[in-house]
Amino acid sequence: MDTFAAIAARRSVKKFDDAHVMTADEINRLLGAAILSPTSFNIQNWRFVAVTDAEVKAQIRKAGWNQAQYTDCSLLVIVCGDREAYRRDPARYWVNSPQAARDYILPAIESAYADNPGLRRDENLRSGSMAAQTIMLAAQAMGYDTCPMIGFDFDEMARIIRLPAEHDIVMAVAVGKALAPARERGGQLSLEEVVVRDRF
Amino acid sequence: MDTFAAIAARRSVKKFDDAHVMTADEINRLLGAAILSPTSFNIQNWRFVAVTDAEVKAQIRKAGWNQAQYTDCSLLVIVCGDREAYRRDPARYWVNSPQAARDYILPAIESAYADNPGLRRDENLRSGSMAAQTIMLAAQAMGYDTCPMIGFDFDEMARIIRLPAEHDIVMAVAVGKALAPARERGGQLSLEEVVVRDRF
Repeated sequence: MDTFAAIAARRSVKKFDDAHVMTADEINRLLGAAILSPTSFNIQNWRFVAVTDAEVKAQIRKAGWNQAQYTDCSLLVIVCGDREAYRRDPARYWVNSPQAARDYILPAIESAYADNPGLRRDENLRSGSMAAQTIMLAAQAMGYDTCPMIGFDFDEMARIIRLPAEHDIVMAVAVGKALAPARERGGQLSLEEVVVRDRF
Repeated sequence: MDTFAAIAARRSVKKFDDAHVMTADEINRLLGAAILSPTSFNIQNWRFVAVTDAEVKAQIRKAGWNQAQYTDCSLLVIVCGDREAYRRDPARYWVNSPQAARDYILPAIESAYADNPGLRRDENLRSGSMAAQTIMLAAQAMGYDTCPMIGFDFDEMARIIRLPAEHDIVMAVAVGKALAPARERGGQLSLEEVVVRDRF
């Protein structure tokens, strides 16, 4: 599917066919696209919980104000981030690079993040959100629809998915077969309202 | 360009052709794609500074540790977010929806954000980062390359672009013609390392 067509066709779908099952190959293809998304210093700090289990989905729906997408989607991806990714054997993030590049970049990673917990959390939100958009567009290209979701109790979600320490939940993305085409966009701002040239 | 091809071809390019000029139509097409990205409650909280002016780029390069991408790219998009978007005439975000939907959603927007400044900032990071990835993939499909950048002094950048109060800078995206193909990816983690099934 053409990239611009996928961008235009992506809409937040509320009603999914709860009988549809995604194959393991499809899930791998989708998440394989997600991990081609950029991260600062290539720290690959995103983590993905691929939820298909009916019981886990039901628990999440309860933590998500009973929204039907949580259980009716075929795959619920909980996009998370690891605040400690920057120091989990960072040499592997640059293993294909020349030694001189590694000698420069590895201390730069340490220096950027070591004393900056706020930045580590921001990086989780940035990396995770870019990956989430990749998932939504890749899903569209695979014939699926999606719904990005933050309507849930984050603490309760963390408990359900057993979120490890030093991790953040960024958002959830429901993926599945839409039962009905999306309605007209709610009210799109014009470019003039959100773009300025050179400075505000 | 195929969506999966754009996702795979997107790499962070460091060397751009500083003589290349993007047309106004190209810039509008690119940012027109960006604003089709999702935002919570359709609050469309992203704001984009489209920098092409040589003097502004030079100032940003100075605030960005002299990285050449800031001046050599054809278009530098400073992706920002407005923490107050949720209450700037929110009825326009749902103008195409039935009155009953509006009656439900407008108070829900107010209730979600009014007393939650942390969430408002997180939403800027989420919405802005999803839009940034859309820009990168759309640029790829238009024959351009990109580089997402946070390597700059955020306060100095805010001063240069005259960032209004209640706005956050999310990241910058350099867009232009690459002078050389990207090198091999630095060191890609496997899916097994970043994906868990159902829970951690």
